[in-house]
Amino acid sequence: MFKKVVIAGVGLIGGSLGLALTRKKLAREVVGVDPDLENLKLAVCMGAVGRAGTLSEELPTADLLILATPIGVTLGVLEMARPYLAPGTIVTDVGSVKGRLVERAEAMLPSRVYFVGGHPMAGRELAGVAGAREDLFTGAAYVLTPTASTNPAALHVLRQLVQALGAIPLELSCRQHDRAVALISHLPHLLAATLVNTAAGEADCELLLKLAAGGFRDTTRIAAGNPAMWRDILLTNRDMVLQAVKNFRQQLTTVEQAIRAFEREELVQKLAAAREIRQNLPENRKHVLAELHENEG
Amino acid sequence: MFKKVVIAGVGLIGGSLGLALTRKKLAREVVGVDPDLENLKLAVCMGAVGRAGTLSEELPTADLLILATPIGVTLGVLEMARPYLAPGTIVTDVGSVKGRLVERAEAMLPSRVYFVGGHPMAGRELAGVAGAREDLFTGAAYVLTPTASTNPAALHVLRQLVQALGAIPLELSCRQHDRAVALISHLPHLLAATLVNTAAGEADCELLLKLAAGGFRDTTRIAAGNPAMWRDILLTNRDMVLQAVKNFRQQLTTVEQAIRAFEREELVQKLAAAREIRQNLPENRKHVLAELHENEG
Repeated sequence: MFKKVVIAGVGLIGGSLGLALTRKKLAREVVGVDPDLENLKLAVCMGAVGRAGTLSEELPTADLLILATPIGVTLGVLEMARPYLAPGTIVTDVGSVKGRLVERAEAMLPSRVYFVGGHPMAGRELAGVAGAREDLFTGAAYVLTPTASTNPAALHVLRQLVQALGAIPLELSCRQHDRAVALISHLPHLLAATLVNTAAGEADCELLLKLAAGGFRDTTRIAAGNPAMWRDILLTNRDMVLQAVKNFRQQLTTVEQAIRAFEREELVQKLAAAREIRQNLPENRKHVLAELHENEG
Repeated sequence: MFKKVVIAGVGLIGGSLGLALTRKKLAREVVGVDPDLENLKLAVCMGAVGRAGTLSEELPTADLLILATPIGVTLGVLEMARPYLAPGTIVTDVGSVKGRLVERAEAMLPSRVYFVGGHPMAGRELAGVAGAREDLFTGAAYVLTPTASTNPAALHVLRQLVQALGAIPLELSCRQHDRAVALISHLPHLLAATLVNTAAGEADCELLLKLAAGGFRDTTRIAAGNPAMWRDILLTNRDMVLQAVKNFRQQLTTVEQAIRAFEREELVQKLAAAREIRQNLPENRKHVLAELHENEG
């Protein structure tokens, strides 16, 4: 499918892409570029990339560059990569926020280098290449965000790549994507962290944490994510996140008022609506274990 | 340990207590009482109780009555049980809210019947006796809420029972308990349901749910709980729940303002504090699987 793929940033996502590209034989060569040389060595050792390299040496003969760097540095890495990109090269990223990044990337690149924004909706708590898995994307949604200036052939190639990875390609506008992740990813993270901090703010915090059963653990699991990464995500998607928080607050006020006024019918309807939607969430293979999980009563 | 234990309400918790009492040989006889005769039959069939019975016939020769009914009907069942309770019988419950229930139960019972409130902090999503497991309480906190009028010998017996179940007994005042569960159980449920309803309130709700990855699933898992049960819990613990929501809102406002004002340091500190606390939550055997879980980035 590709002659040479360069992966800039060989962490959990970059490493998993490398593993999948290699094992599924989607590229003749997969080269990793990473400022953390220890991490890069581990990536080579694990077979996540075939070898380590540099942007200046590798890009002139690459046909795909995947930017799998932390969102705060992606545009900086692209800036460094730009002089070495050969005409015809496709560039994609894996960032959790698309809007400004896609706009800037398109503006920055020469006309015969083709940028298409991407976001695989998969991950694990185990950060870094050590957590990389060939099947991380199997069954996961993989968003592509073409714009009016996207090259149709490049988009087609990436769509095929996503399918070859076993993921489900979804094409959204940057705005649709950013609004969606604000609600289903960034807001949940913010709520989980805030819930932990609320418990921590209590005088008997130690007792609370000792008592915490399955429900608290499930609800706050994502609060264990990397703080700097999440700060950058939240700030990069600031407007959409603030809108999502606002919508959440309005919903919270409704149930709060139902509790205050002992509105039994109103309250049970809200809870029943949430249950029905939650129960109907399509489960993919990754969540089968989770379904067996306990939850305190 | 006991001659005859009567379990009123043989659902997930009552059934699991029955299984543990039987298999660990903590009672010579375990009798189930339940208005749902199909459920009771299943409980006998599973060995969760030795046989089915009625309050009037069984209580006069029982030395322990466990009220494992939905919280909304517990006092009503106790009212029905009262005439048949022999002097010396210990009565306990498993309800998620203690304050008013314990007060009323103590006031209602004759002086030689000994009430001690209890709350095993364990559960599963699989409701009903079909989900019952002998080891449901292993390693879980089991709160007992003695008051000034609690009989010390009865408390001692229950403490031993909790230990024999493999759970960790914790003695708290009703107020301490109710405040704690408001924060670590009732508030998380409310937030999970509200988060689902926030996503459902969006025009592109279907897309959102399709994209929802591990983080959203984890955070909203408890929203799949029984709506009527949760309504009763939230309303029974109304004041504490409203206070918990208030504290949560204050914390939410702080991070919201940090995002609005691009306060990078403030925001990363909040997220880092939450991560540290979450990572240090003591995990028991039930959560080992969960730790291997994925979470979108």
